[in-house]
Amino acid sequence: MTRVAFLGLGAMGAPMARRILAAGFPLTVWNRNPERARAIEGATIARTPRQAAAAADIVCTMLSDPAALQAVADGEDGLVAGLSSGKIWLDFSTVTPAASRRAAERAREKGADFCDVPVAGSVKPATDGTLKLLAGGDGPVLSRAKGILDAVSAETLHFGGVGQGSAMKLVNNLMYGVTFAAFGEALALAQSLGLPAERTRGWLLSIPSVPPYLRDKMDFLAAGGEPAAFQLSLMEKDLRLLVEAGGGPARVPVVDAARGDYERARVSGLGEKDFAHVLSFLGGPFSK
Amino acid sequence: MTRVAFLGLGAMGAPMARRILAAGFPLTVWNRNPERARAIEGATIARTPRQAAAAADIVCTMLSDPAALQAVADGEDGLVAGLSSGKIWLDFSTVTPAASRRAAERAREKGADFCDVPVAGSVKPATDGTLKLLAGGDGPVLSRAKGILDAVSAETLHFGGVGQGSAMKLVNNLMYGVTFAAFGEALALAQSLGLPAERTRGWLLSIPSVPPYLRDKMDFLAAGGEPAAFQLSLMEKDLRLLVEAGGGPARVPVVDAARGDYERARVSGLGEKDFAHVLSFLGGPFSK
Amino acid sequence: MTRVAFLGLGAMGAPMARRILAAGFPLTVWNRNPERARAIEGATIARTPRQAAAAADIVCTMLSDPAALQAVADGEDGLVAGLSSGKIWLDFSTVTPAASRRAAERAREKGADFCDVPVAGSVKPATDGTLKLLAGGDGPVLSRAKGILDAVSAETLHFGGVGQGSAMKLVNNLMYGVTFAAFGEALALAQSLGLPAERTRGWLLSIPSVPPYLRDKMDFLAAGGEPAAFQLSLMEKDLRLLVEAGGGPARVPVVDAARGDYERARVSGLGEKDFAHVLSFLGGPFSK
Amino acid sequence: MTRVAFLGLGAMGAPMARRILAAGFPLTVWNRNPERARAIEGATIARTPRQAAAAADIVCTMLSDPAALQAVADGEDGLVAGLSSGKIWLDFSTVTPAASRRAAERAREKGADFCDVPVAGSVKPATDGTLKLLAGGDGPVLSRAKGILDAVSAETLHFGGVGQGSAMKLVNNLMYGVTFAAFGEALALAQSLGLPAERTRGWLLSIPSVPPYLRDKMDFLAAGGEPAAFQLSLMEKDLRLLVEAGGGPARVPVVDAARGDYERARVSGLGEKDFAHVLSFLGGPFSK
Repeated sequence: MTRVAFLGLGAMGAPMARRILAAGFPLTVWNRNPERARAIEGATIARTPRQAAAAADIVCTMLSDPAALQAVADGEDGLVAGLSSGKIWLDFSTVTPAASRRAAERAREKGADFCDVPVAGSVKPATDGTLKLLAGGDGPVLSRAKGILDAVSAETLHFGGVGQGSAMKLVNNLMYGVTFAAFGEALALAQSLGLPAERTRGWLLSIPSVPPYLRDKMDFLAAGGEPAAFQLSLMEKDLRLLVEAGGGPARVPVVDAARGDYERARVSGLGEKDFAHVLSFLGGPFSK
Repeated sequence: MTRVAFLGLGAMGAPMARRILAAGFPLTVWNRNPERARAIEGATIARTPRQAAAAADIVCTMLSDPAALQAVADGEDGLVAGLSSGKIWLDFSTVTPAASRRAAERAREKGADFCDVPVAGSVKPATDGTLKLLAGGDGPVLSRAKGILDAVSAETLHFGGVGQGSAMKLVNNLMYGVTFAAFGEALALAQSLGLPAERTRGWLLSIPSVPPYLRDKMDFLAAGGEPAAFQLSLMEKDLRLLVEAGGGPARVPVVDAARGDYERARVSGLGEKDFAHVLSFLGGPFSK
Repeated sequence: MTRVAFLGLGAMGAPMARRILAAGFPLTVWNRNPERARAIEGATIARTPRQAAAAADIVCTMLSDPAALQAVADGEDGLVAGLSSGKIWLDFSTVTPAASRRAAERAREKGADFCDVPVAGSVKPATDGTLKLLAGGDGPVLSRAKGILDAVSAETLHFGGVGQGSAMKLVNNLMYGVTFAAFGEALALAQSLGLPAERTRGWLLSIPSVPPYLRDKMDFLAAGGEPAAFQLSLMEKDLRLLVEAGGGPARVPVVDAARGDYERARVSGLGEKDFAHVLSFLGGPFSK
Repeated sequence: MTRVAFLGLGAMGAPMARRILAAGFPLTVWNRNPERARAIEGATIARTPRQAAAAADIVCTMLSDPAALQAVADGEDGLVAGLSSGKIWLDFSTVTPAASRRAAERAREKGADFCDVPVAGSVKPATDGTLKLLAGGDGPVLSRAKGILDAVSAETLHFGGVGQGSAMKLVNNLMYGVTFAAFGEALALAQSLGLPAERTRGWLLSIPSVPPYLRDKMDFLAAGGEPAAFQLSLMEKDLRLLVEAGGGPARVPVVDAARGDYERARVSGLGEKDFAHVLSFLGGPFSK
């Protein structure tokens, strides 16, 4: 039976780890804060990332950003030190293509394989196993990891070599980021033109060029806008990384302008709120 | 029985005029090219806009832009010359709030009333009478015109005084314009990151931040992208008018950047194509 | 002796015409408002542009924009109707390269030659004959017109075929437009950072990356900022034409952003003021 | 006699330290790389920043950025640990207003005073003592430090409390950054319009809206563009900090667009070159 390790047991990682256990795989877990590891009943707890990786055939990570990924991977007690020939490292985190390629190189030095498989979906689909995975890496490696990928997701979409899953995830986030900034500016324009706020929002949320997702987020904001599902400062960061990865701002002026809206919202103090607060910043306030 | 005139019998105006006839109202029609007037069976044909307005209680216009509206309204044979006390002028065209207010002033000089009621929807809902109307003007005037408004639409939404229907229509168009520019830039970024084109489009068209409407337009482009439902140069113009109306570009950087994408696409020769061609310009080409 | 016609006798055209007379050339003049023609003592007054062109070997124009140029050129009484084989049309106006090329085609149909020779310099150098000319057209044609060019200018710089003088003039204006917008934004930032206004202006006007010209214009603004040497709305227009001519906004984001600053200033009501008022709009007010 | 310490003996710091020595002040020096300290003949060498500060009445720093400043200031062996009541810390580095205020707080905890006095000028004026200082801090403190300030500079301009010198320095750099980006875009437009490169550069460098400084830098680029006087990535960083400090990109669209030009140039691999290479990136190449 394939032995699995899971590192990073936050809001997303914990339910994903539980699904792997429920699918019958022996599981070793590690988390910076060990209490979250102890909460995964039925799993073995490792003291270090290295120990977790050493005990597994497939090592999964779900971390907050490239820096956290690197911190878990490197050093004497790091994940990479526990890798060896034939093992597979699956990274579910949202990072840059460059961070994915760096991790893959570290794995290769140990004879191990790496795939970037960032997830589309949030806590509920992580619990239900209905996430979708945007995968980068070698097809045969993904096939060898199929049991684990299937345990946590409804579908794995393969977009190319290492880093292409991360690239697809950033482009995916772009559409969220720009759509919200555009809607915020539409509401701001409507205000400056003297249009009635609630009726205007009602109309705009009904038209076919406005995605249904915006309606859910407007309800969320009207109900107070807490807690953050995805922090505004992270959206700004993803848009910036994407603009740079694409060759710079002049090539994608709309994306860059949206990044600017998030930058202003963050400078105004909204960085730790949900990214949907860019709507309130640009076109609010909203009340019931 | 209320007598109606309809001026401007293009792709939208003709089916709207027919619905008014079908609802039992006596109808006088006028069109710059008289052949299109003769095609409305059962209607009386006027030789001039003035003659059409003189013969009616409610005068409807559906024209291409502010200049066409002014050309039909002004002069010795113009619509305004045929207005008199108690008549109502309903303008279904998409124009600026300023153009609506100018028309209303001309009507008022004759003792007549004016409402701007631009339409949401295209040829099929115009034929079926399921358009939605975005109305500006006095409530009591709209009530007096209810029979006609109901004959051509499923719903009339009232957004304020004269010009506010036109304002709402421009903000409405913004969401189409920006969404398409953003999607085009997303495809361009995906290309520059080496992502597989068809698979990337497939994924992006499936996510909740992408409106279903984009899918229809991608099919339209894959099938050749003809004929234009809404010209790219008109989208550029609407975005520019809207940016200016809102106080200038720095206030709405995303909208202004989108305007820039349409400007570049128009400069490259795509001005008379459907606005969806901004997708091909930025992130194409697309094939089946 | 070469016979000369001069059409367009505004603030720049009148002193230029006088210099041609002073150099000993027989001169026929025309102006839309004939009083300005009568003010050129020693010149023959033509009743129409056609008559002026018919009476001359070299026909000069100095008009406000492409539309004015076309209005003087076209029609039964237009300048072009008075051209014939061997004549030369020198256009000193600031227009687009496309407008210059269109004029050249009209001249060619009559067997005449055309050069665009927009001027660098304002009223004083026009009076002193120390303007510089940015020339587009054939070298031999410019040589044949050398006597006239020398009468009005200190130097003629040749930048290529027809339209390249106009292109150079627009790029020339860019540096004025962007420098002023940048300085205005610098003053705005200084304000928002709480820096003392007068001392900050004093320092910035002293550093080597700030052109001396800004100092003169700051004095002009402090003295009331009247009259306009170059209207703000014209600067906006030149920047827009230039951005379009260069392929669109994404290729020249700084120029496009500067255009946006002038657009906002114009929307706020400053269009007919001198373009230096963009400084007051962005970073003012200034007092003595 | 006032005892002085100087920390940071790079291209600027070394000649400034020598001028203080030449003015007769007893001097203790420290540098991360001690060889550069040994090169200051006549100075006492300290082993740690703390030891340097402990040995002086006035402590000077000239470091590369906020991170370097903080690294030298903090910790057991840091500069702050060597401060005590009555001492003055003069920071000549270019940092953010926030970094200056943070340093001032650390000094105050020890009873010491702090002034931010970033310099305008480069190596030659540093050697000649003709720098200009842009000062933030209390007037009386600056007066007490007058002997030292006079030893290294021709003039000290006072712009307000702590941080206002740093603010003025960032605004100062803005005018360099935007002017170069604008000139680069002008050259790019000239290229796309088919204007002759060398002649166009010659003309633009002669007009009154182009600062003379650009001419020097064009000569520098034509001669190979090495070594970097001010790195391109630092210009990008300063513009970004400034845009954020001013409330975000929409408030200063021209500055933000210029930042974008530097961002693209840096992404293309020019980050460590002199910032003037933005000209080559946008509008080059240049040859003799």
